[in-house]
Amino acid sequence: MSLPDAPGLLYERLAAELAQDIERGVFRRGERLPSVRRLCQTRQVSPATVFQAYAQLEARGLVQARARSGFYVAEPLRQTPQSPLTAAPVPPQAQPLGRAALSYALLQTTRDAEVVPLGSAFPSARLFPFEVLARCGARAMRRLRPEQITGALTAGDAGLRDALRQRYALQGVRLASDELVICNGAMEALNLCLQAVTRPGDIVVVESPTFYGALQALERLGLRALEVATDPREGVDLAALGEILARERVAACWFMPSFQNPLGALMPPARRAELVALLARHGVPLIEDDVYAELHGERSGDLVEGLGLRRAPPAKAFDEAGGVLHCGSFSKCLAPGYRVGLAAPGRFAAAVRQLKTMSSLATSLPAQLALAEYLAQGGYERHLRQLRAALAGQLQRTRRQVARHFPPGTRLSDPAGGYFLWVELPEAVDALALHRRALDEGISSAPGALFSADGRFAHHLRLNTGHPDDPRIDPALRRLGELARELAQAPAAGA
Amino acid sequence: MSLPDAPGLLYERLAAELAQDIERGVFRRGERLPSVRRLCQTRQVSPATVFQAYAQLEARGLVQARARSGFYVAEPLRQTPQSPLTAAPVPPQAQPLGRAALSYALLQTTRDAEVVPLGSAFPSARLFPFEVLARCGARAMRRLRPEQITGALTAGDAGLRDALRQRYALQGVRLASDELVICNGAMEALNLCLQAVTRPGDIVVVESPTFYGALQALERLGLRALEVATDPREGVDLAALGEILARERVAACWFMPSFQNPLGALMPPARRAELVALLARHGVPLIEDDVYAELHGERSGDLVEGLGLRRAPPAKAFDEAGGVLHCGSFSKCLAPGYRVGLAAPGRFAAAVRQLKTMSSLATSLPAQLALAEYLAQGGYERHLRQLRAALAGQLQRTRRQVARHFPPGTRLSDPAGGYFLWVELPEAVDALALHRRALDEGISSAPGALFSADGRFAHHLRLNTGHPDDPRIDPALRRLGELARELAQAPAAGA
Repeated sequence: MSLPDAPGLLYERLAAELAQDIERGVFRRGERLPSVRRLCQTRQVSPATVFQAYAQLEARGLVQARARSGFYVAEPLRQTPQSPLTAAPVPPQAQPLGRAALSYALLQTTRDAEVVPLGSAFPSARLFPFEVLARCGARAMRRLRPEQITGALTAGDAGLRDALRQRYALQGVRLASDELVICNGAMEALNLCLQAVTRPGDIVVVESPTFYGALQALERLGLRALEVATDPREGVDLAALGEILARERVAACWFMPSFQNPLGALMPPARRAELVALLARHGVPLIEDDVYAELHGERSGDLVEGLGLRRAPPAKAFDEAGGVLHCGSFSKCLAPGYRVGLAAPGRFAAAVRQLKTMSSLATSLPAQLALAEYLAQGGYERHLRQLRAALAGQLQRTRRQVARHFPPGTRLSDPAGGYFLWVELPEAVDALALHRRALDEGISSAPGALFSADGRFAHHLRLNTGHPDDPRIDPALRRLGELARELAQAPAAGA
Repeated sequence: MSLPDAPGLLYERLAAELAQDIERGVFRRGERLPSVRRLCQTRQVSPATVFQAYAQLEARGLVQARARSGFYVAEPLRQTPQSPLTAAPVPPQAQPLGRAALSYALLQTTRDAEVVPLGSAFPSARLFPFEVLARCGARAMRRLRPEQITGALTAGDAGLRDALRQRYALQGVRLASDELVICNGAMEALNLCLQAVTRPGDIVVVESPTFYGALQALERLGLRALEVATDPREGVDLAALGEILARERVAACWFMPSFQNPLGALMPPARRAELVALLARHGVPLIEDDVYAELHGERSGDLVEGLGLRRAPPAKAFDEAGGVLHCGSFSKCLAPGYRVGLAAPGRFAAAVRQLKTMSSLATSLPAQLALAEYLAQGGYERHLRQLRAALAGQLQRTRRQVARHFPPGTRLSDPAGGYFLWVELPEAVDALALHRRALDEGISSAPGALFSADGRFAHHLRLNTGHPDDPRIDPALRRLGELARELAQAPAAGA
């Protein structure tokens, strides 16, 4: 589960030694680092350990991999891109919604395997242990007792719920034994939580920019979105939120404190505690969308040394009034396509269970049992370490590509985890026009307008950095940069 | 798929011969029939064939199985129970709903494995081929290609959808290649279809009595239920429906033409055609809940000789205007707990796909792939024959038990398929009181009040006949009958 197991220590120790050598100048900028074979020989370690060490260094921006050539000390960024600006002050009115159909149409484009998935919401499926999961699923399903089927009705398989409760306890979240509801992915969990705490016409506060799925869910339920300014590093602006709460009758907040989509913001633990206390004072429930929690990079750990945790605990960990409806998922960290998510809805648990019964009765058992078996057999932490290293490496690699190829004045986020970059293009660039031009050439992107109810962020886009294995990514980023430069120079023609 | 395959013919031929012998008086009422061993020897057939033949005869009410003793020519029913009355004229106002919470609480009681499941909505899980499904799932999941995950987004796995389209074609339903949407069970499919064709406040026509899940779904979406008189054998009263359509602005109908829950009514094909035409004239969509379609008994086949089909085609088969939103499921006929259902929403397919994306994104892949593999390898028809025979046998057995033990004046349905009996007790019996008393003794039942928005059917109950393998059923039916007799004699004390 945590640091002291041998393989982790080994590659981490090797990475630390190499980092020291780079700092001391043993290896200089642009120089080739020792080959994998050589390191295996000299350090008496396995190739996997060397690759993991290099992936970690790549994630930290110290090392660059070059195809068929090896590892090099990273060149400095041509120019350090600045963070995107915090959203301009958000208009204080709740926005009527009407963009779901547009979002849906745009998102369909990312389903085509021929299209380079820079606009996709999903990481590469090649990063996940499907073989092992299939074996686990077969084992568990062969042992299936008929009572398990009725037992799992509505709230989910007891074994999986127990395993999840134990994992949450390690993150400082104590869940009541019947609080967890296993759902058809986080999307269902979030929808049910939203229904449990709102009535049509209600105001729900969301981040700005926010996940378009949240905007769609609000629109479907006839709710109004009120966007609150959100810092690309630290998340929701609590002062701005406090003003909203003092002024408006808010039914709920829907926030993503860890690796917010699309900003990548990671709200520090102290701010999480403050957020939960603020909302409790106003009696406003928090829907915590925590689907990227497991995808933290190297830096996330530093933030919470004081708490004895290697990462930021969920906002749910600070909840004493039962007002946090926490939602998670295995879709981004272990098993895409299995559609296994969860809700831990605090004092709204009974309402969410009832809504679940009415809307889909129960969650598919083969997927639940496969995950329960996988969690029981061990190996999840090793998988997560590899996944985090791969994603963190690709994130830094994409940052370098954008810095190199995108027009001057481009700003981009520097997330501590997840697999999205938020890119603020020069104001002259219409990101929707850029999206259309690139799509004509088989490259998808997620235009900024998707991430707001009022169409702001017109010169922003979200890039997916979750496909380290796709050789089309680098050329596509270069081409996207070229198209952006063209649009930056001829703004009138680009619209 | 159809008649001409050997095992089916063999047991059917044997059953026909035995039936003839019984009719001719070779074997008389109450007499013991030849043992399985003896028939195996004299007819040169396998024990499975003999069991299937006897199960078929039991389903037709000709034969009775006695535990550890063998098969006997059936005794005539002590008194032939009459069918329940068609619902008294339904009040012409759409009813406000408010019973979801009650339904939910009552239904929780059927989840306890210690409770005899006479009130359950599910057949015994022991009737399903979980071992084979687990092997199929493992095989398919090991072959999983990452592209399949994005490919299956929203509408479902292409292989499963193809297999389903082919099965529907054999029932006279031609589906467009992108019409099918795989859902998390029929419950999600029905909910999404309902959302696609209604707005809060709309009127939806449902059968009387109707499936409580439909009433819950309507309540959740702020819709009003208008109940239409429904015949226990032939389904919705089309004249009554015509009057409603002429008088009210109806947004949709939600009907179950095959083995309606709870009546077991099977709408004849000609009436289905008429229903679809009537609704098309009024421009009213039909949500066809067809989850019990595969569970037809012996008699269902006779109805559709003229169409060259062995069973009633779905109402969807008569749909030319794209106004039928057909919903089905594998939960009752092959794979409970897998939560794989489907919607074929006609001209509303795009709307349903979009709603699916917004509410749960996609359906769990392991379950879908297991089913696709199972359908491809063959054996489904054999499983269905066994399942139908087992359910039909238990249905007749339960009818006999009710006739024997329940108070005089009890009427009960005579469904042509499915696994529910609808029991009309003497008017003095409060079925909710009966439900509570029986539950105190560990026996569940589904009181009639659940099946209507206005609490009618107060002296009715639905009995589950889907547990042929549960030795507690017969004693529980006897005890339930005793309790009903007590309540019939002392109505005031029973409330």
